[in-house]
Amino acid sequence: MNGAEQTIETLVRRGVDTCFTNPGTSEMHFVAALDRQRAMRSVLALFEGVATGAADGFGRMTRRPATTLLHLGPGMANGLANLHNARRARTPVVNLVGEHATGHRRYDPPLTTDIEGLARPMSGWVATVTDSSQVAAFVDAAVDAALGPPATVATLVVPADVSWSAVPDQAVDRLVPADRANGGGHAGSARPSTTTGSAPPGRTTIGTRGAVLGGDADPPRSEVREVAVALTCGAPAAVLIGGRATTGDPLRRAAQIAERCHAKLLCETFPARLERGAGVPAVERLAYLAELARLQLAGLEHLVVVDCAVPVSFFAYPDLPSRVVPDGCQVHLLAGPADDAEAALEALAGELGVGTGSPVPTMAPTRPLRPSGPITAESLAAAVGAVLPEGAVVSDESNTGGLHIPGGTAGAPPHDWLTLTGGAIGQGLPVATGAGVAIAGTGRQVLCLEADGSAMYTIQALWTQARESLDVTTVILDNHAYGILGFELSRVRAGEPGPAARDMLDLSRPDLDFVALAGAMGVPATRAESADELVVQLERALHEPGPALVHVPMERSL
Amino acid sequence: MNGAEQTIETLVRRGVDTCFTNPGTSEMHFVAALDRQRAMRSVLALFEGVATGAADGFGRMTRRPATTLLHLGPGMANGLANLHNARRARTPVVNLVGEHATGHRRYDPPLTTDIEGLARPMSGWVATVTDSSQVAAFVDAAVDAALGPPATVATLVVPADVSWSAVPDQAVDRLVPADRANGGGHAGSARPSTTTGSAPPGRTTIGTRGAVLGGDADPPRSEVREVAVALTCGAPAAVLIGGRATTGDPLRRAAQIAERCHAKLLCETFPARLERGAGVPAVERLAYLAELARLQLAGLEHLVVVDCAVPVSFFAYPDLPSRVVPDGCQVHLLAGPADDAEAALEALAGELGVGTGSPVPTMAPTRPLRPSGPITAESLAAAVGAVLPEGAVVSDESNTGGLHIPGGTAGAPPHDWLTLTGGAIGQGLPVATGAGVAIAGTGRQVLCLEADGSAMYTIQALWTQARESLDVTTVILDNHAYGILGFELSRVRAGEPGPAARDMLDLSRPDLDFVALAGAMGVPATRAESADELVVQLERALHEPGPALVHVPMERSL
Repeated sequence: MNGAEQTIETLVRRGVDTCFTNPGTSEMHFVAALDRQRAMRSVLALFEGVATGAADGFGRMTRRPATTLLHLGPGMANGLANLHNARRARTPVVNLVGEHATGHRRYDPPLTTDIEGLARPMSGWVATVTDSSQVAAFVDAAVDAALGPPATVATLVVPADVSWSAVPDQAVDRLVPADRANGGGHAGSARPSTTTGSAPPGRTTIGTRGAVLGGDADPPRSEVREVAVALTCGAPAAVLIGGRATTGDPLRRAAQIAERCHAKLLCETFPARLERGAGVPAVERLAYLAELARLQLAGLEHLVVVDCAVPVSFFAYPDLPSRVVPDGCQVHLLAGPADDAEAALEALAGELGVGTGSPVPTMAPTRPLRPSGPITAESLAAAVGAVLPEGAVVSDESNTGGLHIPGGTAGAPPHDWLTLTGGAIGQGLPVATGAGVAIAGTGRQVLCLEADGSAMYTIQALWTQARESLDVTTVILDNHAYGILGFELSRVRAGEPGPAARDMLDLSRPDLDFVALAGAMGVPATRAESADELVVQLERALHEPGPALVHVPMERSL
Repeated sequence: MNGAEQTIETLVRRGVDTCFTNPGTSEMHFVAALDRQRAMRSVLALFEGVATGAADGFGRMTRRPATTLLHLGPGMANGLANLHNARRARTPVVNLVGEHATGHRRYDPPLTTDIEGLARPMSGWVATVTDSSQVAAFVDAAVDAALGPPATVATLVVPADVSWSAVPDQAVDRLVPADRANGGGHAGSARPSTTTGSAPPGRTTIGTRGAVLGGDADPPRSEVREVAVALTCGAPAAVLIGGRATTGDPLRRAAQIAERCHAKLLCETFPARLERGAGVPAVERLAYLAELARLQLAGLEHLVVVDCAVPVSFFAYPDLPSRVVPDGCQVHLLAGPADDAEAALEALAGELGVGTGSPVPTMAPTRPLRPSGPITAESLAAAVGAVLPEGAVVSDESNTGGLHIPGGTAGAPPHDWLTLTGGAIGQGLPVATGAGVAIAGTGRQVLCLEADGSAMYTIQALWTQARESLDVTTVILDNHAYGILGFELSRVRAGEPGPAARDMLDLSRPDLDFVALAGAMGVPATRAESADELVVQLERALHEPGPALVHVPMERSL
């Protein structure tokens, strides 16, 4: 058994059974190992940003890490933007990055780079394994780090000679059956499998934890009793949930607590995965625009924060504050990203005497009427709301064109909503791809709401969807522009934009033909010229197995 | 005048007049500034890897830096792979990367990353400017660093508040007309324009110089006399040129020296820009495969290295050495990347008594016959050789499918050949785009030879070619596979590949329709099913103004 084979073997033992990859020469032993360990499903991407975004989508749905297999520094670099989003989503991901053979690096061949340096800004854990006898220990440590808490992106650099060298028999013998990676991301059950039994492997470097654990303006964790007092003192209060508190039991408990205390229930602007729809507790998402978020928070005297950062403006603007929490509002951190949000909510419920059967306000089932006439932001939202199937997973990178869609789908059958957690565009199609792999065979459908400009960052994802016959329907909201930037340009007080500035936001010269793009990569596609056509095409795309794309030309946004 | 305006103003004063960009909110003041300084040509890309690769292609042709304008850490990350190639090519590039406003960063909003950390592995110079009064000084320092020697990638991070804040009148007054950036990359004429007159700006961090200046196995610089003795002692010798020594006068002088001394004239495997064709000194390129490179160097007792690294194997393989220079061969470094290669060659020529009129062997004009029949690697090479126009700029990322093209074009009218300097695929289309901007209006043509797998990394470049009406003809060499990896898989001794391994190298499930992809992005395209069709389609594509694409299906390489 060589190092590459033991890497795959160890991952499979830890329940990591899916690999999104674009390999190169230094990863050929991993590729060869795939034939000997068939429990690892390997999914090819035409670009590394697709692979890393797919790992994010997969991890958000399964709460288990997928692995990526990337080629040296440039392969890592191409995957970084979507790893940024994954890290902000606190998705568990294990990156395997090939490196030149140890003795070869000193000659500085052309592909040499500082891989750890590249990985560090987007990873919570980074290490290089330098000895094939240590492979299992390092892979275990990477999986542990990925699972957290907090869950994060773990990057393991594997030199080619470590991959191709035989693992000493002794090291193979020490491989004992380990617990499978658990879904909850808690340390207890995920940590016992380090085979060496010693301290964490050496040469490990850790990324800047601070960056994903909230800004330096965030408060320390509050006592449960203090939070209970704040919520019951009669002053206006809100509970703000994020992270793992936006689905399942934690979501329900948070809603019960808010209901009992007459507090507002809010969720972070860009949740990794929000459960919503008919019968699900109704949550108000904080707005992207700081002006609107300030309105949502106006008048509050207490804000209880559960598993997310204290909200701030997405960008700064001349003469406007970064903070959106009102002056004088006290912020109470019930659980940070490294804490067990579910346990913290249980403790708070206990303190407040909120039983599991306590009333919880949920969304009433309601669907918009099937729209007719021209396609507008409103009729588009109605169309999506009218057809969204139960159990759908929505990968939402619709940006300005999709403004009304959350409203149009609020009462649709229950579904999951995956958002642009880190703000790095080009996430939607890859995350939909990984979610499609995660839900394959369950009867669930992925709906990807994708803006034209963002789509073109990682359009190659469509090919992987075709190759894997994934049940992903992509809707391209095509306003022929970087619509959000037209809006932002007016907000940064840079003066009235002239032709040169407008030209940099314009995607209509030439217009992009998304039907042709999809067809070229094996995804059947249609164009909807009216709301009536859109509904029919969406229903058909969702109904038929395999991927499909619907191109929706909208009014030019510039 | 605000910081963004002064940035653009200073760049234009330094002769940096072309910006390849994909901007975001934090760069909106730069976008607005484009309306007020029309001397800066701004070219929009749909993905940052296109923008950085285009800056590389532009810089290789003009020897002047273009600037890129990138959005925060994720925008920088998306551009890194082609910056790696640019750095290896020693192309001058100035990156401007927007950052959150200084006061906003502490709140850790979602797009926050360690931008300098991301930039450092692929940059020779990195700095953040924190005060709008210092903008001109930092931009000057960035341009100086980019020009070198050695020329490199310089990255300047500009927080949004520095962009939007007014530059104090005093700082504007100090702006004096500066020398324009010079083409030669020498320090003398490029350095006088720092407006502060003080030491280099603070907060500057410098990338690892070692990585582009050769491995630790490289020798120190040799004396000219020692090199002359080595070349005239009668033992088998070769002159290996790279960097700036592969075009113009340095190339001619190197050829004259080699001819006089009966030495072999070689050039590095992946030159940034190689002048070649009829009437140009004939140079033998070192092979990519170490086995072949060893054959080319076998028997040598002296190797004189001019402006490049001592050659080594591109990758390492089990039980094979990294070095390709024979044991016992003495390596003499005449000029390293930071030296003036032209002056060093002149000095050597003087020492050897080689006058400027000394005989120089050049390629005889010869063209292959127009091929007929099925498309093979050989008939494809003949087709390109038969039609290549004089002055063509060839962006070559043809990989395995293009193996015979250098031979087929060796005697074609003189042309420039741009290669994959850093080995990070996805370079060809962006470099062709930037070269197309550089040669616009000169009557020259760009021919991009692009492998199918590499094309899909940065296929978005076609849209920019259409938008800018660039004279770029792309030929897609489509062998429906990562052909090079099929080859490498057999070389790494990983055993006979099974179906899972082969599947990871296969691009035929589904086949990609490059004609549809090009058309979808506004580039007219055709498919050549025979060598006869290929010649006709290539001639037409090269003749008609604006971009075009010819899809060439080849035999499946797996």
